Amino acid sequence: MAIPEMQWAQVIESPESGVVYKQIPVPKPGPDEVLVNIKYSGVCHTDLHALKGDWPLDRKMPLVGGHEGAGVVVAKGELVTQVEIGDHAGVKWLHGSCLACEFCRQSDEPLCAKALLSGYTVDGTFQQYCTAKAAHVSIIPKDVPLDAVAPILCAGITVYKGLKESGARPGQTVAIVGAGGGLGSLAQQYAKAMGLRIIAIDGGEEKRAMCEQLGAQAYVDFTKSSDLVADVQAATEDGLGPHAVLLLAVSEGPFQQAASYVRSRGSIVAIGLPANAYLRAPVFGTVVKMINIKGSYVGNRQDGIEAVDFFRRGLIKAPFKTVPLEDLPKVYELMEQGKIAGRYVLQMPE
Amino acid sequence: MAIPEMQWAQVIESPESGVVYKQIPVPKPGPDEVLVNIKYSGVCHTDLHALKGDWPLDRKMPLVGGHEGAGVVVAKGELVTQVEIGDHAGVKWLHGSCLACEFCRQSDEPLCAKALLSGYTVDGTFQQYCTAKAAHVSIIPKDVPLDAVAPILCAGITVYKGLKESGARPGQTVAIVGAGGGLGSLAQQYAKAMGLRIIAIDGGEEKRAMCEQLGAQAYVDFTKSSDLVADVQAATEDGLGPHAVLLLAVSEGPFQQAASYVRSRGSIVAIGLPANAYLRAPVFGTVVKMINIKGSYVGNRQDGIEAVDFFRRGLIKAPFKTVPLEDLPKVYELMEQGKIAGRYVLQMPE
Amino acid sequence: MAIPEMQWAQVIESPESGVVYKQIPVPKPGPDEVLVNIKYSGVCHTDLHALKGDWPLDRKMPLVGGHEGAGVVVAKGELVTQVEIGDHAGVKWLHGSCLACEFCRQSDEPLCAKALLSGYTVDGTFQQYCTAKAAHVSIIPKDVPLDAVAPILCAGITVYKGLKESGARPGQTVAIVGAGGGLGSLAQQYAKAMGLRIIAIDGGEEKRAMCEQLGAQAYVDFTKSSDLVADVQAATEDGLGPHAVLLLAVSEGPFQQAASYVRSRGSIVAIGLPANAYLRAPVFGTVVKMINIKGSYVGNRQDGIEAVDFFRRGLIKAPFKTVPLEDLPKVYELMEQGKIAGRYVLQMPE
Amino acid sequence: MAIPEMQWAQVIESPESGVVYKQIPVPKPGPDEVLVNIKYSGVCHTDLHALKGDWPLDRKMPLVGGHEGAGVVVAKGELVTQVEIGDHAGVKWLHGSCLACEFCRQSDEPLCAKALLSGYTVDGTFQQYCTAKAAHVSIIPKDVPLDAVAPILCAGITVYKGLKESGARPGQTVAIVGAGGGLGSLAQQYAKAMGLRIIAIDGGEEKRAMCEQLGAQAYVDFTKSSDLVADVQAATEDGLGPHAVLLLAVSEGPFQQAASYVRSRGSIVAIGLPANAYLRAPVFGTVVKMINIKGSYVGNRQDGIEAVDFFRRGLIKAPFKTVPLEDLPKVYELMEQGKIAGRYVLQMPE
Repeated sequence: MAIPEMQWAQVIESPESGVVYKQIPVPKPGPDEVLVNIKYSGVCHTDLHALKGDWPLDRKMPLVGGHEGAGVVVAKGELVTQVEIGDHAGVKWLHGSCLACEFCRQSDEPLCAKALLSGYTVDGTFQQYCTAKAAHVSIIPKDVPLDAVAPILCAGITVYKGLKESGARPGQTVAIVGAGGGLGSLAQQYAKAMGLRIIAIDGGEEKRAMCEQLGAQAYVDFTKSSDLVADVQAATEDGLGPHAVLLLAVSEGPFQQAASYVRSRGSIVAIGLPANAYLRAPVFGTVVKMINIKGSYVGNRQDGIEAVDFFRRGLIKAPFKTVPLEDLPKVYELMEQGKIAGRYVLQMPE
Repeated sequence: MAIPEMQWAQVIESPESGVVYKQIPVPKPGPDEVLVNIKYSGVCHTDLHALKGDWPLDRKMPLVGGHEGAGVVVAKGELVTQVEIGDHAGVKWLHGSCLACEFCRQSDEPLCAKALLSGYTVDGTFQQYCTAKAAHVSIIPKDVPLDAVAPILCAGITVYKGLKESGARPGQTVAIVGAGGGLGSLAQQYAKAMGLRIIAIDGGEEKRAMCEQLGAQAYVDFTKSSDLVADVQAATEDGLGPHAVLLLAVSEGPFQQAASYVRSRGSIVAIGLPANAYLRAPVFGTVVKMINIKGSYVGNRQDGIEAVDFFRRGLIKAPFKTVPLEDLPKVYELMEQGKIAGRYVLQMPE
Repeated sequence: MAIPEMQWAQVIESPESGVVYKQIPVPKPGPDEVLVNIKYSGVCHTDLHALKGDWPLDRKMPLVGGHEGAGVVVAKGELVTQVEIGDHAGVKWLHGSCLACEFCRQSDEPLCAKALLSGYTVDGTFQQYCTAKAAHVSIIPKDVPLDAVAPILCAGITVYKGLKESGARPGQTVAIVGAGGGLGSLAQQYAKAMGLRIIAIDGGEEKRAMCEQLGAQAYVDFTKSSDLVADVQAATEDGLGPHAVLLLAVSEGPFQQAASYVRSRGSIVAIGLPANAYLRAPVFGTVVKMINIKGSYVGNRQDGIEAVDFFRRGLIKAPFKTVPLEDLPKVYELMEQGKIAGRYVLQMPE
Repeated sequence: MAIPEMQWAQVIESPESGVVYKQIPVPKPGPDEVLVNIKYSGVCHTDLHALKGDWPLDRKMPLVGGHEGAGVVVAKGELVTQVEIGDHAGVKWLHGSCLACEFCRQSDEPLCAKALLSGYTVDGTFQQYCTAKAAHVSIIPKDVPLDAVAPILCAGITVYKGLKESGARPGQTVAIVGAGGGLGSLAQQYAKAMGLRIIAIDGGEEKRAMCEQLGAQAYVDFTKSSDLVADVQAATEDGLGPHAVLLLAVSEGPFQQAASYVRSRGSIVAIGLPANAYLRAPVFGTVVKMINIKGSYVGNRQDGIEAVDFFRRGLIKAPFKTVPLEDLPKVYELMEQGKIAGRYVLQMPE
């Protein structure tokens, strides 16, 4: 199967241009890179930030966005030994890292100061052919459907990583704030697969039904609770509160409230990134309860492999809707309007 | 040596009384308790809070204060097998705990909901004879001087615990905020004994000299620095900042600043308890740097044994001044005036 | 409900006597003890060793055996605050420990040099009323059936502890040697509840069927395998072998073979106690694969609570057969003949 | 400074040839490699095995040996960003690894199945110019002398890693078996710098003097002890034995004895590689004492950086003798005769 010279892509040509659907050259992989024929790519809120440029982080320009790509390896550089042509591979937010700094040496590639970000500082997965660092692609077993796995490559890995960082052990209870959202529904499924018990925190009866179906032991509706702290603690059998809290919320409030209901010695893991928000907790209570508040970013490469493995075993379902690459602008529009439930996955043209 | 019926004590007779130096009965140990003939007791800021009743925590009344007592076991209850009459023993803030709840079962006795607090919810060490739970006294080897060890029993254990909680490994760097104070000078010595490197943060040339003598690799003077964050990070060789931060400060500012200079994946350990203070950190930076903010309370029983062992080996020096028990009011007065450097230790009457 | 003066018990009166079913006085709890009206008690192989005296460890004599007792607290000593009359409670192998030594201070009560052992160094649960240290009984929630939980109190806790000690994380694979036995079937269920994947190793088609039904991903039949090492490694998808091995076998061979098939950096956890057996592994392979070989004894108090909690949630089924206390000699006989599948549980007379 | 076409090297031309001192071409670095102008290289026992071919591991042939090289980077491939020309760099046993497999992803590069070994499967440091994988060289700060650091790059890192793997915390006690040898003297110095206390085990008065000077708290002479187990345990103040044991011995006995004197819950770390030796421990004692026996191989890249950092800070002294590269055959001869104390370091011709 010959690699073409030109391909279809969604390109942000300038800060003001929006995305333009057009033909561009197929890139060539460097010595440590592979060329992936992208079949499907999820669309994430981060892609919208990349489009709008409203983060305090410089973008490449012109830019092809996208960082949840799944496809087939069609070419590779001379140094690549761990990936074969024909392998299925996932291209993630962390496109590359130096693999040699203090953080890379200790398996914390996402903290590398030289990290390259797919669809942000390098071209991403909203194109038919995308280069990727061989050491950073996730090999996807061939029995895994490439459309369904796309959202796992960012959202799934991120919540799985957060659950690992929480330190919660099988049998313990984790409260998930924002349990009914896209990240939240994945988090509940990973938590269950890891032997954890779940207190789902979100708003409304529709989300209650969804959380209970996913296996949450309790649902606390913040729109109805007159004392959220008491209600969350009451949802654990001994009344001492959850062993861990996963903060997936998109507003600041929960980031400042979790310390009031987490169990002594418990951990609070911030994952969501509401704009300009602050974590806040009283010194006295944090000290005498020995509470642990921490941030968890995207997973490292091993987390990625593990998160996909849980998916592959049928333990994780992520609802998604497939549309052609050409329709990306419509997806952005729905996203802006807050009208997306689940994930949109773009299908590349044949 | 017969145990007398009556003894000298400093008693807070009522919330308004102040301390009264008077004779009271010698208490009798219960089946799981020992009676300790206190020889020396340190005086801690917490004792002043117990006197003034300005904490949101109910005191026993009337009350004998004190929780840094060192003495000799002179009687014991029928169930006590692990302590012998004649043993030297330390009586600490954590007088007792249930030894059976979830926290006690996991070596976190300080988090026990039924914890008894010396000199606060039970009578403490400002008396000649004090009862103590046998399971909670620290056995003190007989080659350890009882006056010098008194301040270790609270201040020493607390900073040692905080250093353990930081997760910093030998060879890594810990920033100590408030390094020149009483807790800070102990923290520096424990850190050094644990193979850690130290950035001392405090104010003034006198404290600089003291910190450098104690072995700090760098001293950052917050009264002179125009960019504390830059200066602390510059004090590590690679410029990435310390692996851990110990917050011993008595004002709120440092509790909100540490997240700006700690290394990615680093930990910030709150120990000091400035009134009404809050920990605060930006969500974005905490997440993408994967920072860990945690509280550390007093040590558990094992921490207590270990902290005393470091002291015993000559690795820790805590300057102190000895005055008779009768002079406790004068010590409180100096404490209120902020005139105490090092620790005051009360000597019990013979 | 009055506590009688006399009760029925199975008593080993002398090293030669065997067990005698007779009436003996009901014991009185000490200040830190409770009196438990035993309803059911499991019978464990260890009880047979206690009867025969073939372990190099001195027994109390005369002795009431048994250490898997479940019943109701009917009296308690003056110091007991954490247990109430009417509570359901489990009496385990670890009857008591000093709660103050280096091991007890660090939640390793089973390693306490002063540990008291139920049905071995103190009277156990083969009687209607048994004293127990309040700090060591396991409180059993009232919705848990007392007959079914009995085997959990020893066998269940022990395998759960071993799985925790293995360090295997959810999603990783544990090989269980002796998977088809009583310990093994419990281990498989706990492993599954903890999110682990299982390679069951045992002999015969009957055990294969049982293991596959319990959820093992693979079954390796040592009676048929011509290359066990290859077969176990092939049972992991990448061929690198299991992340952990649980040794529940009653013969020495598997204790010397596990190092050949465990994954690099993996752990081998010895739990079973074949007589006079040795662990053995080549230095070279252990070093260059960085293998970890460790022993796991019975659980501590927290492990006990957690293991019962998994059971209570319906995740663990332990088949058992109930017979009256009077029939203990018949149970021993069947045990000697190797004719017991599952567990025998003794019902105390009303 | 121009890179020459030809250089001096010690070459094993065929399995029977021994080393030949001759001129060979200077190699060219690949895209992910650097070229290091070696200044000094230590000589290790492993080099003798590479010469003799008596390990069950295939060598490259012809082969340039050596894996403790320190020098200056003089050229680099196009992909190399983390190393600059002019940097000082160390070339270690682990020449390269795939950086992408399960082990590399989790910072265990030494366990990589595709690991390249300097002076064994690729040409090593017994030449003036040596290629090395950029991600695997250790950057050496310029204030570190290149001759003295050479032995740290293998022996130092290995014992430092073993101490980390032991899990011993500052203040705890580690027994070092073979404390008086080359690895042992380094291990004692690292242990001290890490806040550990040391029981040195070795034979003879000369080694006693050396160990005591290095700071060992106790020395147990196995040539004189009539009860080594008792003597080692007596060397800890509470008589319970060391928290960890480091096995650096070159005979099998100590590998089978350590389980008898290590503290309950303690760890035994095998590092030395006596030929055909086995670890061996009774199942019963290992289980009821919950002992941990593990192997520790060479350090990963982060361990390497840390071990050099301790050296740089002046905490580690490794005695060595410098001879010209040409004299390598003499060093091998002395090594075969067991006549080397400390380390030989080869100086490359200018």
